[in-house]
Parts: sequence; C-alpha cells; structure tokens
Amino acid sequence: MMNNEYVLVINSGSSSLKFAVIDSASGDAVLSGLGECFGLEDARMSWKYQGQKTEIAIEGEENHHKIAIGKLVGLTEELGFTDGIVAIGHRIVHGGEKFTQTVRISEEVTQEIESLSDLAPLHNPAGAIGIRAAVEAFPSLPQFAVFDTAFHQTMPKRAYTGAIAKELYTDFGVRRYGFHGTSHYFVSREAAKMINKPIEESSFISVHLGNGASVCAIKDGNSVDTSMGFTPLSGLMMGTRCGDLDPGIIEYLLKKGWSQEQVFNSLNKESGFLGVSGLTSDARGILEAMEEGHEGATLAFQVFTYRVAKYVASYLAALDSLDGIIFTGGIGENSLPIRREILNNLKILGFVEDVAGNEGARFGADGIIAKSEMLNAVAMVIPTNEERVIVSQSVALLSK
Amino acid sequence: MMNNEYVLVINSGSSSLKFAVIDSASGDAVLSGLGECFGLEDARMSWKYQGQKTEIAIEGEENHHKIAIGKLVGLTEELGFTDGIVAIGHRIVHGGEKFTQTVRISEEVTQEIESLSDLAPLHNPAGAIGIRAAVEAFPSLPQFAVFDTAFHQTMPKRAYTGAIAKELYTDFGVRRYGFHGTSHYFVSREAAKMINKPIEESSFISVHLGNGASVCAIKDGNSVDTSMGFTPLSGLMMGTRCGDLDPGIIEYLLKKGWSQEQVFNSLNKESGFLGVSGLTSDARGILEAMEEGHEGATLAFQVFTYRVAKYVASYLAALDSLDGIIFTGGIGENSLPIRREILNNLKILGFVEDVAGNEGARFGADGIIAKSEMLNAVAMVIPTNEERVIVSQSVALLSK
Repeated sequence: MMNNEYVLVINSGSSSLKFAVIDSASGDAVLSGLGECFGLEDARMSWKYQGQKTEIAIEGEENHHKIAIGKLVGLTEELGFTDGIVAIGHRIVHGGEKFTQTVRISEEVTQEIESLSDLAPLHNPAGAIGIRAAVEAFPSLPQFAVFDTAFHQTMPKRAYTGAIAKELYTDFGVRRYGFHGTSHYFVSREAAKMINKPIEESSFISVHLGNGASVCAIKDGNSVDTSMGFTPLSGLMMGTRCGDLDPGIIEYLLKKGWSQEQVFNSLNKESGFLGVSGLTSDARGILEAMEEGHEGATLAFQVFTYRVAKYVASYLAALDSLDGIIFTGGIGENSLPIRREILNNLKILGFVEDVAGNEGARFGADGIIAKSEMLNAVAMVIPTNEERVIVSQSVALLSK
Repeated sequence: MMNNEYVLVINSGSSSLKFAVIDSASGDAVLSGLGECFGLEDARMSWKYQGQKTEIAIEGEENHHKIAIGKLVGLTEELGFTDGIVAIGHRIVHGGEKFTQTVRISEEVTQEIESLSDLAPLHNPAGAIGIRAAVEAFPSLPQFAVFDTAFHQTMPKRAYTGAIAKELYTDFGVRRYGFHGTSHYFVSREAAKMINKPIEESSFISVHLGNGASVCAIKDGNSVDTSMGFTPLSGLMMGTRCGDLDPGIIEYLLKKGWSQEQVFNSLNKESGFLGVSGLTSDARGILEAMEEGHEGATLAFQVFTYRVAKYVASYLAALDSLDGIIFTGGIGENSLPIRREILNNLKILGFVEDVAGNEGARFGADGIIAKSEMLNAVAMVIPTNEERVIVSQSVALLSK
C-alpha cells in the first residue's frame, strides 16, 4: 500500500497564518490551523486534528510568522506527517502581469513577489514572509506559489484596460487584475463536469459571494472579465466594501473636508452591507433582520442582489453563449433568499428557479438551481475549494 | 390665422449662455445663439437667424450673463419675435430630490435651485444667474425650469442607493441622481411611437452617447436606473471622463503623491477616449485614427463599445421585458461603426443588425437598426431633441 501524500497549504497574511495539511488524493484536510494577532501581545496559534482543537500562545519578540512555522515543523513531526508531505503550496494575492500560473518558488520568485508589493501592500509582503519562513523550516521540500490574480491574466485588453489616462497603466501598472482567481478557476472546472461539457468548450459566469465578492466571465476555460479591478475594493458591493463607485463622490467628500484616510476607511470598512443596512456586514445578520422588518437590512438585500444581477447580465457582453451561472462562496453556497432574488432579477433572461434544487443546494451540496430555455443555460451551486487547487497545481508541477 | 407662438430656451453655463427661440408648433429654432467666454476679455455672443451668423463682443465689467440676456431682449424686439414669445424655458442641471418635474419659476424656486449648488457647483449657480437675468429682462413672461435630473426621480431605492455608509445619503445627499433626463425622456417617447406601443406599457434601454454619455432603463415610461450617478463623472467611459472606477485607484494615486486636483483633473479631463487613445476625445477622430491602424484609438474603440454593451446588458436586470434599445446623442445618432460593435457585443441576446437600417439611420434620420427575436426587441436610432422637451413642457404648464 502506498503511503498517503500530503501538501502543506499556507496562506500568510499580514498578522495571521492559515495552514492546512491536505491529503493530495482525497483533498481532505487532516490538519488545519490558524495563527493570528501576530505582532501583538496575544499572538496565538490554534489547530484542529482528528476533531480536537489545540491553542497555544506565541511568545517572543521576533518574527511571529517564523515562530508559527517553526511550531508547524514540530507539529507535523509529532503527528507523523513529515515524511508524507511532498510539497508546500503558498496562496499569494498578487502576481501582477508577471505570474500567469502557479510557479515553483525560488529566491528569484520570492523577490518578484516582494517587488509586486506596491500593488498589494498588505498582502504580498506577508506572503513573502511566509515563503521565507517555510523555506527555512522545510528546506528540502519543493514549494509553489499560487496567485489570486493568475487566472485572470487571460483577460483581453478591452476588459483589463481602464478608461483612464494610458500613462497610469504604462507608468504605474494601473489596470484590472482581478482576484478570487483560484475560486473562479475551481468552480468553473467543477461546473463543466456537472453539465458534462469539456471546460474548453464551455462558457460560465461565476459568482463568488463571500465577505469579499466578485463575478467572472469564463470562456473556453479562460477568464475574460472579472469585477474586481486594480484592487479588491471594486466590483460588487461586499460585506463592508463599496465596489465600483462614482469617483465624483470621493472628490465631493474630500472637498467637504474629509481626510483621505476617512474617505477610504469608509469605503473599505463602513460600506457595503454594513453601510447600507447600518447594522451588520454579515449576510446572515442582514437576512435575519430583514425577516424582522428592518428597513436598512431590506434595502441592503435589495441593493446587493440587484447589483449582482446587473453584473451577471453585463457579462453576457463578454460571451458568445452561456452554459451556466455558478454561485459559490459563503453566501453563494448557502443563502437561498439571496440566490432566489438574484435569479428573480434575471427573469427577463428566462431563468426559472428549480425550487427543490435551490433549496437542496446548501451547506456543501452542489446542484442545479434554475434553468433558462432562452439562453440554454442553467444556474448552479458549486462549493468552492481553493485549497484543492493549490494542492493539485502543486502536485502537478512536482512531476515536471 | 393664428400668429406663431415661440418659447425662448436658455441654457446658462458658468461662462456661457446658449439660447434658442423655438416655434412651439413646429419645434424649429427660428433663432439660436451662444454667448461664451463670459468673465473673460474676449467674451462674445453669436447667433444664427435665417441662415446668417452674427457675432458681437460683450464688453463691460459687470455680469456678462445679464448683458447677454439684455442683448437678447433687443434682438428679439428687432426681429419682431417679442410678442410671439409666450414663455421662457431654462435648462437646469440639478433638481436634487426636490424637483421631480418641470416647474414654473418663482423666487422660491430660484432659491431652491441655488440651494442645490452643493450638488452641482459649476452648473446650478450659473443656472440661477441665467434665471435672474431673464426674469429681470422679460418681467412679464412666465418662466419654467426643466431639470436634467427630474426624469430619474422615479428610480426605485435599490437603483439610487449607493453601496456606501447610509449617513452619506442622509447627511450629504450622496445617491444616484442621474443626468441627461430630458434626452432619455424624449427619445423613449419617440421610440414608443415608432413601435406603435403606448409608452406606459413599453420598456426601453436608452443609450445617450455624446461627449457625455449615459444609459437609462425605462419601464412604463419611467426611469428605473441610469448610469450617471451622484455626478456626471460616473457610468460609461466618455470623451474625457473615466466613468465608474475602482476607488482603490484614487487611493493609490493619492498615496503615490498625486494631489487631489491632479487626480480629479485626470479623471475628468484626461480619461475616456482621450486617455485610452492618447490621441483625442472625439469619437470621429478615434474612428479615423483606427482606420489608419492607430493602436490606442483601436483600444479606445474596443473599451468604449464593450463597456456600453455591458451597461446595456446589465439593465436587463432592471426590466421585465424589453421593447427596444435606443441609440441617441451625437455618437449614437451618427457613428455606424460604434453602434455596430455595440450590437455585435450583444449578439448572445439575439441581436442581428439590419445593415441597411443601420446605415440609413444617420445624420438626423431615425430608424430600426437591429432586431432580436430572442428578446422580441429592436434596436433603433432616435435623434434627441432636448429643446423640444423644454418647449413642450413649458407650454403644457402655461395652460395650467
């Protein structure tokens, strides 16, 4: 019997480190954990193994990412995984125009990730710190970088070019990059399987609705447009983010005497569900309050679902045909009323809800939730699994 | 025989004054003119009467709007129109939430227009100056204010609410207002006549493409969504304006050390066709350069037409059915390649160009230019005529 093979997946944030040891065959996480509050006094790390949760404090003045990954070495040894781990896959936010797919990490790659920090000032430096710590802790393991932006590098110029001075692109790299690429990639492949069509001949509109949210038009397996742009602030309304905005609003607030910090704090952290409802950034909280007749929550629900529907419909202009609209992400996978209202807003395109299908496809279950005879398309739910992409792409590169 | 009745239409800008004396029965302008460079040394005023153009200098230190309207009194007397003019209609940019339709001007109305200057700092004060000068110069004539925003006041909350902190609306009035309302109103009425359907039972998507550009979804005759928002900077890409934007781009440029003035100057005056092409803000210039193989012009054409098509498709989410897509405005009425490419981007919705119709509907001619069996809808060209709306609404209120 072959021993199990595992991939260690690492997602290193500015003050956190998510990790999971994943069985490359089954895709199951045998160990998963989170380090948080790095750089603060209550820095800590917790993990789940065989249903049991353990938490420890992270002490010491030095680099908490490094300490946490050091603990991880001990932990995998203790649990007997060390020999089984064949690769480490790092989730990296920004690959700029340089990285169009998953790559094997070298010192040069790490430096290139660092050099893109200008485009993702919170995320890329943290990603590079995670990589350096992991390379030091697991020197013999091959490591891979999987980028949130890479899948969208197939977008045509008309989709990624901003309607702004071209020097902003040539001198500063301002263009649409898009994020959530790993998720849109994964669910489009699963969707093609669900409808028994080769991904290379399929067209989908993938709707990732979580605390962050984005829509992606996928043609023949490639991203051809997506709603997040130069930064993850744009596109759809989100938990606390505003999405696309009339830039005149920013000019107006600055002229009113708001500081730049106030303005962008408001647009990043006090907008979206939270801002419109005046209540909460959480979709579940919105739905509960709505049932109790809360006006702001009802409005937030209506604005959100209407805007998602408009984005989905707009991407018909990116495609020659449509096979399916895919709902994924925490909200997309679970929220029946939100999916129902989005579909209701698309009824002009012939979408008719499959009520039982829609009610069944929740909490991890996939399924067809509506059909449009007019477009010869379905709407479906596909639970996303970005870790699985990180594992499979790392393993695929291992053998090269 | 009844004597002809005329309406004097005035569009007062911050440094300009457009005017026309319009035959209320035929809708023809018997006299039209423009005062410009107000406040500067070369302030001047020109007019066209019976095919002949006259230009005079405007001299003196005082209010040039007032001097120009004073000249207009003399001119209409000289040409023998004075007795025929039954009303003055003023085009006013911003009516806020207060003005939902054309109103008869009183001192109170003028003050309310001034009080909305915060929302249209360049336009409303100029409009009020024009009103005051006209009231003084033509004291016996009833005067009316026709608002660019009024038509859009029927938008539902889900369409006009920003995905931002609700205090921005309650405390500052930040919401979607929309502009070009008079144009969208006019062409939707003409479109309903063209397809022999009552406007109260019709659904249109009106696409006004000029130097400024906006899209409007019109249901049962009422605006239910439009692409311009709090300011006319948002929505579509325009001659020099960027349209909707990732707000993170503004944050990025400010952090790079750009001043607020540089940023908003770039987004208002160096973006759009001009910015993407690096060449010109004029659509005709873009098309000419494109024919000569200019890369920037080709990209500007592609980005513009793709974005228009996305906006049009997105408004399907605002409607239950669609009767027609209406093209209007200088570009919409005349540019065959731009209309063709927009329709081409909508082929997934079944739009098939009527080539002869599209080629024929130019330079003032209306017509059907495409059909979609799938949506049971047409695409059409309707030349806009905002002055006609100002005249007819002023005359209609006269008799009340």
